[in-house]
Amino acid sequence: MSNASKEPEIALVRAFARLKLEPRKLQAGHVWLVGAGPGDPGLLTIEALSALDQADALVHDALVSPEIVAVAEQAEKFYVGKRGGRLSIPQGEINALLVRLARENRKVVRLKGGHPYVFGRGGEETLALAQNGIPHRVLPGVTSAFGGLTSAGIPATMRGVNGAIILATGFAAVSDDRPDWTALARTGQPIVIYMGLTHMQATVAELLAGGLPETTPAALVENATLPQERTVVATLGTLVEAAQREAVVSPALIVVGGIVAMRDRLRGGA
Amino acid sequence: MSNASKEPEIALVRAFARLKLEPRKLQAGHVWLVGAGPGDPGLLTIEALSALDQADALVHDALVSPEIVAVAEQAEKFYVGKRGGRLSIPQGEINALLVRLARENRKVVRLKGGHPYVFGRGGEETLALAQNGIPHRVLPGVTSAFGGLTSAGIPATMRGVNGAIILATGFAAVSDDRPDWTALARTGQPIVIYMGLTHMQATVAELLAGGLPETTPAALVENATLPQERTVVATLGTLVEAAQREAVVSPALIVVGGIVAMRDRLRGGA
Repeated sequence: MSNASKEPEIALVRAFARLKLEPRKLQAGHVWLVGAGPGDPGLLTIEALSALDQADALVHDALVSPEIVAVAEQAEKFYVGKRGGRLSIPQGEINALLVRLARENRKVVRLKGGHPYVFGRGGEETLALAQNGIPHRVLPGVTSAFGGLTSAGIPATMRGVNGAIILATGFAAVSDDRPDWTALARTGQPIVIYMGLTHMQATVAELLAGGLPETTPAALVENATLPQERTVVATLGTLVEAAQREAVVSPALIVVGGIVAMRDRLRGGA
Repeated sequence: MSNASKEPEIALVRAFARLKLEPRKLQAGHVWLVGAGPGDPGLLTIEALSALDQADALVHDALVSPEIVAVAEQAEKFYVGKRGGRLSIPQGEINALLVRLARENRKVVRLKGGHPYVFGRGGEETLALAQNGIPHRVLPGVTSAFGGLTSAGIPATMRGVNGAIILATGFAAVSDDRPDWTALARTGQPIVIYMGLTHMQATVAELLAGGLPETTPAALVENATLPQERTVVATLGTLVEAAQREAVVSPALIVVGGIVAMRDRLRGGA
């Protein structure tokens, strides 16, 4: 590597030294749930980077970029991700794996896309660890909704547009956790939907039934923050058709509300 | 500095090198809006660290830790923060300052607590930059709500508890942006309130009017993610009294909903 190509790295090292941070030590027999952020490796936190560096067992899923997984070069990797919307490994087995690795006295990092406690089922994993007396810690990441909206040029909040924002899962189709979309619609606040593609048609129908006009601005953000990111802008009335026409695939965020209309006005950036 | 105390730093440098990231270059005459995260310097993203390292003009407010501001040692600092809830510098002047610094061909970082586009008025600043033809970029940070909840041991979402979560500002007391708290209450979903202390009494009254029971779990998280963090647990019915009794001060998050009750169950960590 030439000196020139090492320059940004050296600069970052100096910046890190100025921060005078002492990253916490990951002890053997402990489990850290770590948020990897929305995809872009630059959106990793410093603590997350440090956690990856210390792990000797890494449990990760599909929403984490290979570049990020590769940081933990010394760790044994356990892939427990979904494929095509199906859970390849049941949650109970993931919980049991974390407990087993901790009992083997490993330094365990459970790496999750986004933030572990925002639609990441991290709460269930923490609960299993707590019930088994395994010491644990949760490290926040940039959640996919806010990383993705920003990357797509859509503000989460805007003065004169909204004083609240709702994050919801579109995947809890039949469970008790299924949000009451009509009640969410009646708040008049923008809604960002994680994992919303599969049940989009039903979700949109209920948002319309809740009183949101068909003309409400809406967008799909596919592969948010990654090089192949794509944003499809529509309205609530044309969203399903737009997703089909543009063949939008997972992972994709759905955004509904006046904040989407700010996108054009905020343009002109670098 | 001894070799031993440099060890974590060296490890981090190696981890960073393995990420093979090339941070983007901040050009002269450009403005980057950068999220500093909820307070803990370890929750800075790598891109944010790189931005601070490159800036020659840093515009920051009160919600950013001094340790983080200090990273930009070579930058001229412009403090534009609030004091005691009052805006010491009007937003229009901050916008004008950013435009002026860019036109002076500076490398400008506008550093904001949390995420610039989540109740940070970052949208207004971007709009001013766009209208003046200033190239700009927005770098997400960990938003205070999700950093703070995690730090306090409260999951933002939990299977069996909630399929959505609402983030709202408690500060827009008289503006058009004031959320309809009764409508938010009727969704039955947890609500996290930024800047909610000043108008807490009115907010709580409306949430009760919207049908949330007085027994709804609630909490205040003061100085989230900082060493002096403190969590006060109550119910919606006792929240105002608890805040007074414990003399809770800003910055503090208010959390209302069943997720607060998970805190005790998730305990037992490190």
